[in-house]
Amino acid sequence: MKQLFIVGIGPGGPEGLTGEARRALDAAEVLCGYTVYLDLLAPLYPGKETYSTPMTRELERCRWALETASAGRTVAMVCSGDAGVYGMAGPLLQMAEEYPEVETAVIPGVTAALSGAAVLGAPLMNDFCVISLSDLLTPWEAIEKRLRCAAEGDFSICIYNPGSKKRAGHLKRACEILLETKSPETVCGWVRNIGREGQESKLLTLAELSGETSDMFTTVFVGASATQKIAGRMVTPRGYEKKNAEKEDG
Amino acid sequence: MKQLFIVGIGPGGPEGLTGEARRALDAAEVLCGYTVYLDLLAPLYPGKETYSTPMTRELERCRWALETASAGRTVAMVCSGDAGVYGMAGPLLQMAEEYPEVETAVIPGVTAALSGAAVLGAPLMNDFCVISLSDLLTPWEAIEKRLRCAAEGDFSICIYNPGSKKRAGHLKRACEILLETKSPETVCGWVRNIGREGQESKLLTLAELSGETSDMFTTVFVGASATQKIAGRMVTPRGYEKKNAEKEDG
Repeated sequence: MKQLFIVGIGPGGPEGLTGEARRALDAAEVLCGYTVYLDLLAPLYPGKETYSTPMTRELERCRWALETASAGRTVAMVCSGDAGVYGMAGPLLQMAEEYPEVETAVIPGVTAALSGAAVLGAPLMNDFCVISLSDLLTPWEAIEKRLRCAAEGDFSICIYNPGSKKRAGHLKRACEILLETKSPETVCGWVRNIGREGQESKLLTLAELSGETSDMFTTVFVGASATQKIAGRMVTPRGYEKKNAEKEDG
Repeated sequence: MKQLFIVGIGPGGPEGLTGEARRALDAAEVLCGYTVYLDLLAPLYPGKETYSTPMTRELERCRWALETASAGRTVAMVCSGDAGVYGMAGPLLQMAEEYPEVETAVIPGVTAALSGAAVLGAPLMNDFCVISLSDLLTPWEAIEKRLRCAAEGDFSICIYNPGSKKRAGHLKRACEILLETKSPETVCGWVRNIGREGQESKLLTLAELSGETSDMFTTVFVGASATQKIAGRMVTPRGYEKKNAEKEDG
């Protein structure tokens, strides 16, 4: 069988892998991915063959993975978080159309929206949006429009790729857009290096968030209007209290 | 130490658990949750003490968990998918303010948006929204508004709780709202019983989705305008092809 697994490895170390992901990595003869993620797995698979390309050469990596699987070797393409959220599942499945002989399987993982939320408390307990501020692949106008729609709908918002050296100012601009609709007191938070060495996090207001610097290892959370700071945690109520109060009233 | 873990167990069986979740469940003296989820874990923990309440008595379950942890027993509150997405992390952390002696930790898991997406392909590869159609805890008007905003922003949309016996017609109404903005040909899909016995899935158009019946074990995916059906899978392109074409052009 010609098999290619596209595996989300979760936030960081081996503890974040699901059993299913672990089984796919065990089965793979070669692990393929961005160097940082392969390094996170190295302690689990010392000596296993790996193949990596720099961050910006994703399609080359997909091609290599499909060619290698087609040649009969079992390959796991490794993605941080979930393979289907800003990961390699999309481009790989698009390209896989040219390799009908290769069986592909996407193995889901814990994306940063979930692992970061768990660090902060429960900011995504009700309806939420996930938006990337990277305009490498999406026009900036489309990102601005989505930020406006997310604010208008009063979603909790999780922001990926809030900044990098090349994109300084994106988070500040995003906050300005959100502040057109949302209160400057909106509860926000960020987490950096989730589940890895040097993990940090902070709760702050939307007004304060605007002045923060961020990098590609930071995930940002902007609360809905109902989101609260409770005992140092960011929590979006789901509405159970209200329901119970109504029950008691009625 | 008085310890309470709030654990997302992923879509179904033991294979969906992360190592971290597994460790928390191992450490717990008592597992607490909705019966269906405790049953999924039973093969892993035969004989371990459990406590459950019916689905609608969530706050009672949270209170019991906190009281039990406060009395010195290590408790794991078990949620399907991720504890922080329509799960118990929110109400538990709200109530935990009354129990400062209890140390609480949220352990993230693979929510149905991710596990369902992996079954269908890669529908959430770009910015996306997660919306529940249950109006038990959220007014229906707020849900309608979020659907409109999600369509307006051209997000991929993942819909939780699309229907139940009491909420027949919610999915049809949601599709009507989305069709105000989106093409009837928009690529959509649903997955039922993700990662469990009897898993089913289907790709269809938004026009067709409107006539489907669904239940509380179904997760629905509505594509963005760019979402495609590729070799029987639902894929939202991230834009690598476009970028590479521009590179070659420029």
